[in-house]
Amino acid sequence: MINKQVILKNRPKGYPDENTWQLESNEITELQDGEILIEHHYISLDPAMRGWMNDSKSYIPPVALDHVMRAGAIGKVIKTNNNPKFEVGDCVTSWGGVQQYSITNGDGWFKVDESLASMPMYLGTLGMPGMTAYFGILEVGKVKQGDIVLVSGAAGAVGAIVGQIAKIKGCTVIGIAGGKEKCDYIVNELGFDGAIDYKNENIYSALKKKCPKGIDVFFDNVGGVILDAALSKLRMHAKVIICGAISQYNNKSKVQGPSNYLSLLVTRSTMQGLMVMDYTKDFGKAVKEMSGWLQEGKLKSKEDIYNGIENFQETYNRLFTGNKNGKLVLKVKE
Amino acid sequence: MINKQVILKNRPKGYPDENTWQLESNEITELQDGEILIEHHYISLDPAMRGWMNDSKSYIPPVALDHVMRAGAIGKVIKTNNNPKFEVGDCVTSWGGVQQYSITNGDGWFKVDESLASMPMYLGTLGMPGMTAYFGILEVGKVKQGDIVLVSGAAGAVGAIVGQIAKIKGCTVIGIAGGKEKCDYIVNELGFDGAIDYKNENIYSALKKKCPKGIDVFFDNVGGVILDAALSKLRMHAKVIICGAISQYNNKSKVQGPSNYLSLLVTRSTMQGLMVMDYTKDFGKAVKEMSGWLQEGKLKSKEDIYNGIENFQETYNRLFTGNKNGKLVLKVKE
Repeated sequence: MINKQVILKNRPKGYPDENTWQLESNEITELQDGEILIEHHYISLDPAMRGWMNDSKSYIPPVALDHVMRAGAIGKVIKTNNNPKFEVGDCVTSWGGVQQYSITNGDGWFKVDESLASMPMYLGTLGMPGMTAYFGILEVGKVKQGDIVLVSGAAGAVGAIVGQIAKIKGCTVIGIAGGKEKCDYIVNELGFDGAIDYKNENIYSALKKKCPKGIDVFFDNVGGVILDAALSKLRMHAKVIICGAISQYNNKSKVQGPSNYLSLLVTRSTMQGLMVMDYTKDFGKAVKEMSGWLQEGKLKSKEDIYNGIENFQETYNRLFTGNKNGKLVLKVKE
Repeated sequence: MINKQVILKNRPKGYPDENTWQLESNEITELQDGEILIEHHYISLDPAMRGWMNDSKSYIPPVALDHVMRAGAIGKVIKTNNNPKFEVGDCVTSWGGVQQYSITNGDGWFKVDESLASMPMYLGTLGMPGMTAYFGILEVGKVKQGDIVLVSGAAGAVGAIVGQIAKIKGCTVIGIAGGKEKCDYIVNELGFDGAIDYKNENIYSALKKKCPKGIDVFFDNVGGVILDAALSKLRMHAKVIICGAISQYNNKSKVQGPSNYLSLLVTRSTMQGLMVMDYTKDFGKAVKEMSGWLQEGKLKSKEDIYNGIENFQETYNRLFTGNKNGKLVLKVKE
């Protein structure tokens, strides 16, 4: 039985290229006692993957060269050799990586309930991006009714959920996204109060118009110019949540730091980093609440699904070109 | 009776020059009912003065052109016209400005007790810089025993107090200052655990050596390269207190933002702005506690006093050249 695997061969400088990954077909080995074989149905594509390829100290070790590229995965147990926790047919998710099968003793894998949501949704709204949004806006942002919330990357896997949760909590929510289609989507389908199209508007003057009273909470997935512009509009005691900086991940020179950071001083505001793994113990509670919102129609989830592990690199690139329409997922089951 | 006043004539770009201020001699007007006349003995020179000259939105309005330059002042009431709160001989302090006398109804002026500390000390350790240090390190930084604290501008009016309070609270304290003399001073006289001479050491390698375990609390008065270097050494859940950015105040181009701000994400840390005016209602309590520490010898206060309102500009420049030795104060009483 053959496992197609995407292997990290070279650490990219800037954008990954044809030398970064290699697709290999390897024979699946026999299960040892206690192991299970998982067939991956889908893998998750997330901006954080870019950081995992750099050979620098971070919140998790970099992906080792000649190893399978790290990615969230979801699939089904198709074989077990006396594993005490999992059975054939279980739907399970973890960091399975960009490959078609995983062999594991089950550590770090979680069973999910397919009757509550589809597999791709467990990689998005009910997966890491959704958890990031939930704990970021509620635990770090501590939003309350009436807050003016600005979200960058607002049509993305995290941003779309952030904005919807803030709406559920009674906030005014403005989203920043690239292009008319995404802006229309977050306002008309997700219920945001306004949108700023950073590709076609001057971000400073758009913020002046859309957030005339300033911003209480800024949830940033983007960095760069957008972070600077948002800092210039903070209200007193505002909160800036640093979730990511997708505009900076492929820089060959150093990251663009926020020139307007002294706005934190003038407004007595706080800028805080968010790492979803810190909330692992409460994921169950969050999934339950968010499933409820999904069922009540208060929360909408959209996945953009591509097909075939051969198309991994092309699909990955969509994260950074913005050429996608919802949470990016790749189907790897043939 | 003549009042010599330093008037803001032009808003500087970069460093102030000979066109920025003008020294004028103006006749003092008669006191209206309820007013007092205060003779300034000393005025305070602080880096924040640079920001007050810019015509931009900030935490207080800019100094208006053709008005007296804003500054903290201390002196004595020498005349009163039925003021209910102050008497001749009272020692008082407020934003008197760079001039020799103030006429006021007393709003915003505070009496101080000369038996507890000298007038210059009330502009430093027991004035705004001391209050900034006290509330910054205790209320924003929330330092606790065992924390590793890094302070920039460590021989300055704020930094020297920050480090000493952190030592009182049982922290390990490293200071960054410019030149051997200042570094020796903070270690040998103020009891810091270590010093980094940013003028003669590579800040990154010095931090690696002096803070091998990283930093729990960074109190930043400086910004620029020093902020970036400190961000690269944060421990988990660290706090970065933004008090000022003296390295950036005279920039003609935009402020250098911290390239390493994504370290906040990796370490789940917080960067927060500090504004001393937010704590005005607790100043009395702080002055009392700090006076106690001064009397017990736990806290040392050093003022660098120059003489003559004519020398205002030259003395002001010392803030930015670092050519000073303690809290910078100008005696304006002739």
